[in-house]
Amino acid sequence: MSRISYIENFEQWQTSFSFKQEVKVRFSETDMFGHLNNTITFTYFEEARMEYFKHLGLMQKWLEANDDAIIVVADLQCDYLQQVFFDEHLYVHVKAAKIGTSSVDLHYMITREDGSVCYTGRGAIVQISKATGRSLPWAEEVKAVLGQFQEVE
Amino acid sequence: MSRISYIENFEQWQTSFSFKQEVKVRFSETDMFGHLNNTITFTYFEEARMEYFKHLGLMQKWLEANDDAIIVVADLQCDYLQQVFFDEHLYVHVKAAKIGTSSVDLHYMITREDGSVCYTGRGAIVQISKATGRSLPWAEEVKAVLGQFQEVE
Amino acid sequence: MSRISYIENFEQWQTSFSFKQEVKVRFSETDMFGHLNNTITFTYFEEARMEYFKHLGLMQKWLEANDDAIIVVADLQCDYLQQVFFDEHLYVHVKAAKIGTSSVDLHYMITREDGSVCYTGRGAIVQISKATGRSLPWAEEVKAVLGQFQEVE
Amino acid sequence: MSRISYIENFEQWQTSFSFKQEVKVRFSETDMFGHLNNTITFTYFEEARMEYFKHLGLMQKWLEANDDAIIVVADLQCDYLQQVFFDEHLYVHVKAAKIGTSSVDLHYMITREDGSVCYTGRGAIVQISKATGRSLPWAEEVKAVLGQFQEVE
Repeated sequence: MSRISYIENFEQWQTSFSFKQEVKVRFSETDMFGHLNNTITFTYFEEARMEYFKHLGLMQKWLEANDDAIIVVADLQCDYLQQVFFDEHLYVHVKAAKIGTSSVDLHYMITREDGSVCYTGRGAIVQISKATGRSLPWAEEVKAVLGQFQEVE
Repeated sequence: MSRISYIENFEQWQTSFSFKQEVKVRFSETDMFGHLNNTITFTYFEEARMEYFKHLGLMQKWLEANDDAIIVVADLQCDYLQQVFFDEHLYVHVKAAKIGTSSVDLHYMITREDGSVCYTGRGAIVQISKATGRSLPWAEEVKAVLGQFQEVE
Repeated sequence: MSRISYIENFEQWQTSFSFKQEVKVRFSETDMFGHLNNTITFTYFEEARMEYFKHLGLMQKWLEANDDAIIVVADLQCDYLQQVFFDEHLYVHVKAAKIGTSSVDLHYMITREDGSVCYTGRGAIVQISKATGRSLPWAEEVKAVLGQFQEVE
Repeated sequence: MSRISYIENFEQWQTSFSFKQEVKVRFSETDMFGHLNNTITFTYFEEARMEYFKHLGLMQKWLEANDDAIIVVADLQCDYLQQVFFDEHLYVHVKAAKIGTSSVDLHYMITREDGSVCYTGRGAIVQISKATGRSLPWAEEVKAVLGQFQEVE
């Protein structure tokens, strides 16, 4: 497996997550090659990201119809280390890797029940204004919450 | 194939559609049994329904964020007559079969390029108020447009 | 709500399920109207159906690449009683309602945590031969397992 | 917009594609934030990739049930430059950017009808053996076809 650009030390990185969300591979998520279709890992990333934000108490604000702030994806990437099959139980680990003014870089690791890593990923999320489409700086308390487990940039 | 409850005369029914939308089976829409996954026919029905409403000039109003009316699905059904595979070109036919006070019963027929029918379906759509969640009667002009090709109930 | 053709007595029907599978509404399963997209109920039906078959010990055979038998969907329908939103926890109940020679009619009921019913559905599954595409009669032991909780037709 | 690691000169890169596939944003592909859900760009990438391989005459072999070779995704990334909405017509451009022994690095660019770029992406595809799961070197003629428009590494 070629080196993954966003992971410096794989063993260290593997142990750096403290939040995980369980998912089970659905039949409709497989494809005719018999394994989990490649597009679904991003659904799992989103599922875990949302749970992570809920866990941190940040999600509610973004879901309020009257609030101007929403979060959007700036970029996403996934490295496919192993094929995954129907009915497997997976854990999607997520952490805030770097916090910017109005964005946060999230890392993802998907493991099997035996702990082996099948997918890794990362991607930045940006808070924007629904009205203007422009980025909205994090409130200090949001920054604090996101940074609890992480060095703030 | 058992008789389909919403089709009285299959030959007649087949020739009763005047609107169709083309779709192509995506790789991600297949499943590990090698064919189109059963859940996707409803995606195709929605795709054709939206194009049909756009074609009739009805869609714009429901998409306006400030308008109180949206349409919701009341029920849906699909009969699977033939297996369909990756990369097939299909035509999704749709028609208004019966118009109610605030609802419309749509019929669907999915055919291959050779004209053979692989799926049939039907389902009622209801216009509701976003604010109250209650059904909103069709405006007379909407009823007229929907009824152009059909007997009004 | 108009009477649902496959349910004779709603109160009685509601209490007739003994198997259920939990699902949580994903962000990617919502649509721009703000609720769960109508196509996803069929994904939930499939998810619960597969768990149900696993629970009955029937799934393994159909997943074996070398076995000639697979199951396919003959028809599906869903009635949408209530709108459902992001992050809701739902229970997808499934039961074998009627067993045929090579098919089984399954009923579905999706409830909220408070027990209220948001969706109902039904659909027949048929066992076919991969090689011929023709229906394959159930083995006696499969019929027995499916019929444990049900009258055999 | 932050510099995208796989694009050296954006203007030059934009003009380097010769293959494109049209897609239209489906209603079921939007989410409750009102725009195209972030997971769907990868569905569009796959759709365009498959069409590209078909166009090059490579797809047939990988679809044959009796052939040992399939292609799998090694990694994928997407940069989200603009929000995209229901019913937009998009063009998904794809090209082979670099050809390895048993892999190919593909670049993706999704544009609006006015030519503006909403998404960019890249990802490596690897040819593997179904039996062993190991990478299978390209046949010389495949390499030639993939390299028609590109420098071979």
